[in-house]
Order: sequence, then C-alpha cells, then structure tokens
Amino acid sequence: FLREQGYPVRTTREPGGTSIGDQIRDCLHDVRNIGMTAATEILLYSASRAQLVREVIRPALDAGAIVICDRFADSTMAYQGYGRGLSLDDLAYITAFATDDLQPDLTFLLDLDVVAGIGRRTSGGDEMNRMDLQRSSFHRRVRDGYLEMVASQPHRWVVVDADRAVDNVQATIREEVRKRITGS
Amino acid sequence: FLREQGYPVRTTREPGGTSIGDQIRDCLHDVRNIGMTAATEILLYSASRAQLVREVIRPALDAGAIVICDRFADSTMAYQGYGRGLSLDDLAYITAFATDDLQPDLTFLLDLDVVAGIGRRTSGGDEMNRMDLQRSSFHRRVRDGYLEMVASQPHRWVVVDADRAVDNVQATIREEVRKRITGS
Repeated sequence: FLREQGYPVRTTREPGGTSIGDQIRDCLHDVRNIGMTAATEILLYSASRAQLVREVIRPALDAGAIVICDRFADSTMAYQGYGRGLSLDDLAYITAFATDDLQPDLTFLLDLDVVAGIGRRTSGGDEMNRMDLQRSSFHRRVRDGYLEMVASQPHRWVVVDADRAVDNVQATIREEVRKRITGS
Repeated sequence: FLREQGYPVRTTREPGGTSIGDQIRDCLHDVRNIGMTAATEILLYSASRAQLVREVIRPALDAGAIVICDRFADSTMAYQGYGRGLSLDDLAYITAFATDDLQPDLTFLLDLDVVAGIGRRTSGGDEMNRMDLQRSSFHRRVRDGYLEMVASQPHRWVVVDADRAVDNVQATIREEVRKRITGS
C-alpha cells in the first residue's frame, strides 16, 4: 500500500530480521527448548532486537524509509511482563538498552478474543512454536497487558478489531496509516 | 582437587553449560557473525548466563555443592564494558537481572601479559573464536578492566601469575582454595 504511493518501505519481523537474529529466533522457537527460563527468553528476544535496530531499522530510518515491524518491544512487555510475570521495570530497562531508546511512531494491535485467536493458530498452516504452546490463561494475561499499554499511551496505538475478514482489517489499517502520514 | 577431598563439586563453563546455552555459545563464537553489535553480544552472554544460573548453579548450590565456573559475570564487565566501551551501569543492571544477583565467593584471575596471552591462544590447539580475533588494544583494555575490578573488591579476587608452568599455577590456586575452605 505504501510502496504503491511511492514511499520507501522496509519491513522486518521479530524475533529475527537479520542473519544473527534468525539464529536467535531458531533457539527461541525450538519446542525442544521447553526448559528455557523466562529471564533467558527476554534476553534472547532483546538480543535479536538489538541487532535488528542497529543493523536494519536505524540505517533504514536514517535513509528516509518507513519501517514496518511485525512485533517490537511492546511484545516483550506483553508476553514476558504481563504474561510471564517478570518485572516491568526490568523489562523496560533492558528494552531501552536493546533498542537504544528507539520507539515506534504508531503501533497496531490486531485484537481478538483469546480463544478465537488460539483457534486461528491451530487451524492455520503455520507450524506451532514454543509461544503457541502456552495455556489460554497466559494468552489472556498477554491480551490484557496489551490493552493496558494502549490505555497508558493511547496516541501511539490503534486497536484494530481482528474478528473480521482480512480485507476489512487491512482497510482499517490503511486508513489509519493514511491519516497519520497525510495528517488529514 | 576438591573432589579428592570429598567435596561435591559442579563445574560449568560460559557461555554455554546448558543445552540452550550451548546453542547461544555457537552463535556467539561463530566467526561468520562478524557483524554482531556489542549490545547483541552482551544480551546473548547474559541469556546464556541466566539459563546457567537457574538450571545448574542455583540447584547445585542448594544441594550443597561447590560450583566452579570457567568465566562468569566479571567477564562481561571486562570484555563488553572495559573492552568494547559499553556503559558499566547498563552491564551491571543487566547482569544482576541475568544472575538473579548471584555472585561468586571467590574469583581467580589468571593474569598474563596481553601479547603472551594472544601467543598462547594462537599456538594452542583450540579453534579461534570471534573474541580471539580482536586487536591487542582490545585485550589490553580487558586486562586493565579486570585489574580495576580486583582493586575495587580485593577480598573476592585472587590474581594468579599465569606466566609460569601449569603445575605452579595449579598449586597456587589449590592453596588459595584450601585456605578459604578451611579458614586457615
């Protein structure tokens, strides 16, 4: 959508998005690593993010591109903070270190009832990863955490009702992006 | 030495020492990962350490064992702090998180002139890793950093002159351990 309008765009995903980050992603998602502690997990996500910010995101922003990330630091607060119960202060400190204090201008939360969300994951063609194996109570805390972050910084967030057809979800996102970029 | 005297002993190494930690070690030591940023590096070492503390060291200490680590958090301060110039405050915070504030009772620094140390690594049979490829000015800052840490916490450290035969180095270490354990 943005490229059609002539904007330079760089897309990334987390964890991963770099060669080193993809090695870290493999470790994080490997279902054999079931004994991974919550502290190890947040440090690995942060390591992947540190590499992504410095190798990809900062240089792209400096070159004038719009950078779109599939997940970023908010996911750490949601999954490891609200979900696993790690100290939000510790996570905020480590995240600021990992991102070099870089924050997104705009964040979309594709919001969906937890049970419906789990159903989509298990019926889709994607391979299940270590995060997908958590109980629904975990995913409920994650969702509540996201909504709490939205409430505390409403200007940065757009909550998108994801319980609709893909076309409708996309249309909402496009309209919000258009408004932000054109200021109208 | 300690086992001969009947002490239960658990030995570990860093990075690694667990299955997850060994995966992280591979990523840290792979010479193809030459583009790894200093922030990524410290977060990976810390992730490996977090897993080691919770999976191995704490349980062993709780079971009454003496735990001997080949490297621990001081190496992060020395290599990434003094060596690479990352903020010592940031490293101390992240290290406290990773180790759950666990600190060794006693730390041995096998001290050696930097040029002699590099010579031993390159003439030995070990494979060279990413750290070995740093310039000698880097290793000089690392050594100075270690000596600064020793000066600030002298009770916890023993500096061992490593410019001697292995037998002599071992004898010094054994005597220091014996003194600490028996209190005489």
